[in-house]
Amino acid sequence: MAKRLIPLLDRVLVEKLAPPTKTVGGVLLPETASKMSEGRVVAVGPGRRSLNGDVIPVSVKAGDTVLLPDFGGTNVKLDSGSEFALYRDDELLGVLTS
Amino acid sequence: MAKRLIPLLDRVLVEKLAPPTKTVGGVLLPETASKMSEGRVVAVGPGRRSLNGDVIPVSVKAGDTVLLPDFGGTNVKLDSGSEFALYRDDELLGVLTS
Amino acid sequence: MAKRLIPLLDRVLVEKLAPPTKTVGGVLLPETASKMSEGRVVAVGPGRRSLNGDVIPVSVKAGDTVLLPDFGGTNVKLDSGSEFALYRDDELLGVLTS
Amino acid sequence: MAKRLIPLLDRVLVEKLAPPTKTVGGVLLPETASKMSEGRVVAVGPGRRSLNGDVIPVSVKAGDTVLLPDFGGTNVKLDSGSEFALYRDDELLGVLTS
Amino acid sequence: MAKRLIPLLDRVLVEKLAPPTKTVGGVLLPETASKMSEGRVVAVGPGRRSLNGDVIPVSVKAGDTVLLPDFGGTNVKLDSGSEFALYRDDELLGVLTS
Amino acid sequence: MAKRLIPLLDRVLVEKLAPPTKTVGGVLLPETASKMSEGRVVAVGPGRRSLNGDVIPVSVKAGDTVLLPDFGGTNVKLDSGSEFALYRDDELLGVLTS
Amino acid sequence: MAKRLIPLLDRVLVEKLAPPTKTVGGVLLPETASKMSEGRVVAVGPGRRSLNGDVIPVSVKAGDTVLLPDFGGTNVKLDSGSEFALYRDDELLGVLTS
Repeated sequence: MAKRLIPLLDRVLVEKLAPPTKTVGGVLLPETASKMSEGRVVAVGPGRRSLNGDVIPVSVKAGDTVLLPDFGGTNVKLDSGSEFALYRDDELLGVLTS
Repeated sequence: MAKRLIPLLDRVLVEKLAPPTKTVGGVLLPETASKMSEGRVVAVGPGRRSLNGDVIPVSVKAGDTVLLPDFGGTNVKLDSGSEFALYRDDELLGVLTS
Repeated sequence: MAKRLIPLLDRVLVEKLAPPTKTVGGVLLPETASKMSEGRVVAVGPGRRSLNGDVIPVSVKAGDTVLLPDFGGTNVKLDSGSEFALYRDDELLGVLTS
Repeated sequence: MAKRLIPLLDRVLVEKLAPPTKTVGGVLLPETASKMSEGRVVAVGPGRRSLNGDVIPVSVKAGDTVLLPDFGGTNVKLDSGSEFALYRDDELLGVLTS
Repeated sequence: MAKRLIPLLDRVLVEKLAPPTKTVGGVLLPETASKMSEGRVVAVGPGRRSLNGDVIPVSVKAGDTVLLPDFGGTNVKLDSGSEFALYRDDELLGVLTS
Repeated sequence: MAKRLIPLLDRVLVEKLAPPTKTVGGVLLPETASKMSEGRVVAVGPGRRSLNGDVIPVSVKAGDTVLLPDFGGTNVKLDSGSEFALYRDDELLGVLTS
Repeated sequence: MAKRLIPLLDRVLVEKLAPPTKTVGGVLLPETASKMSEGRVVAVGPGRRSLNGDVIPVSVKAGDTVLLPDFGGTNVKLDSGSEFALYRDDELLGVLTS
């Protein structure tokens, strides 16, 4: 039975989305163009503690599409075929909305 | 359909403005002169947390013209032709007003 | 008589679980696949102190199955045959639930 | 039309003053003597945030003559002929009064 | 007359216990096995200060048997034959109870 | 007209005193003996801010004779012949009283 | 007239005591044995400030015999023949009582 991973503290479990190789119009993107990688938030931790010990909730939620930094993150192998990674909330660059 | 990027925490999405190559009077600026780069704020994050967990709002707003540092910032490719970058609020040097 | 180790502050005593070499269906996992290591929480410390001195409890409990980072942790030899290690609460990546 | 730069956070915009090459009595100062550089404060930011998020105002004001450190500061090109630089409030050494 | 050492702040004076070379059953432990070193707490300091200045008491007490880290600690020569060392409370790994 | 330098934040303006080459009794001090340098406090800044923004006053006052560290401090040239330096309050070692 | 040095902030003025070369019984101590150095507290500063500005008093007092670390401390030459040094309160290892 597949296991579920619940991130700890301010970690965010992200399923990496393969970057689009073609623009919406179908034009092949130059390899460099699609360097930015995106991911879908699968699960978030309860949040980290502020210096006084209060819980600071994570700033994204499951289902969000997020822009990932070029570096950082810990790759995680789960039973499904996709590529997953754990990021700290503070590493994520932004949320992409259509 | 173009995606919209909402910066997280204290990040600021900036559209880089090409530095002026001529002075207002049309005199060609020496290459070194126009080293400072400017940008237009497109979107701002909700702000970072102070040590005791309060939200500290970002100090610029969409539409501001800002003076960018020589280093820092993360280049971001969005569907439009312009050049974008994400800066932390604390990296931006100042706001330019006419 | 076997000794019991009670972790101090925000440390967590983990018994390392040998990574599965076969998938649930019995297919031999490629060596790289099972790189992630898991462990069972045996005992937790009382927690660390926040900057103003309050105790911040550890975020996992005895019996949890946790995802371990590739690096970090202090190996500990106890009388039983298993492999044990002490991690700081903040080093643990997540809790695995079936 | 010349642009105005409003510094952000605890930054201070300073117009660098050419160091005096002669003493008040007109005696030529040895090159090393006039190593200390001075500047006139043009504009100040609103101040930085303390750890609890309160605004800490900048400790100099427009019009002050300040003693500049040998290192630090970010040179800024504005339309006027003078030399400008941005310093963090904490970098400035002192205020010179006659 | 032998001197007594009262540790300062969050330091803990530990008498190092020679690691057991044989298991309880008398089987000779391989040299690597007994790498972990244990110690008996002789005296503890009053505790360190939190950022707000409150005293944070040390988390072990005289008489406890503690698991020592491989590194850290300051060796201390006292008049008795035993080997002593001073550790910061935060360096100690755990308390061993039978 | 000579300028007056008012130190900023927690800085202290010190006039360096030439170290005594002879003891009170007139015996020539060996060169190494007089290595410690002393200074007279000329002016002090208003103090630095604590983490929560309160002003922490400087711990010395104008007229004090202070023991200077071997390193640190920023040399400052003022119009008078003496040698001046700016130190952070925290760099000064102690106050010398007769 | 001899000068008195009053340490600033959390500094402690210590007169270094020559380490005993013989045990109480007169047996010559091996050179390595007496490596630990001891000192007598001559004067203490008012204490350092906690992050929120409160004064944290020094944890030793004049007359205490203290165990000194192998490294750290600033040697100070005062008029008397003895060897003095300034330590931060946090550097001192412990108080020796008979």
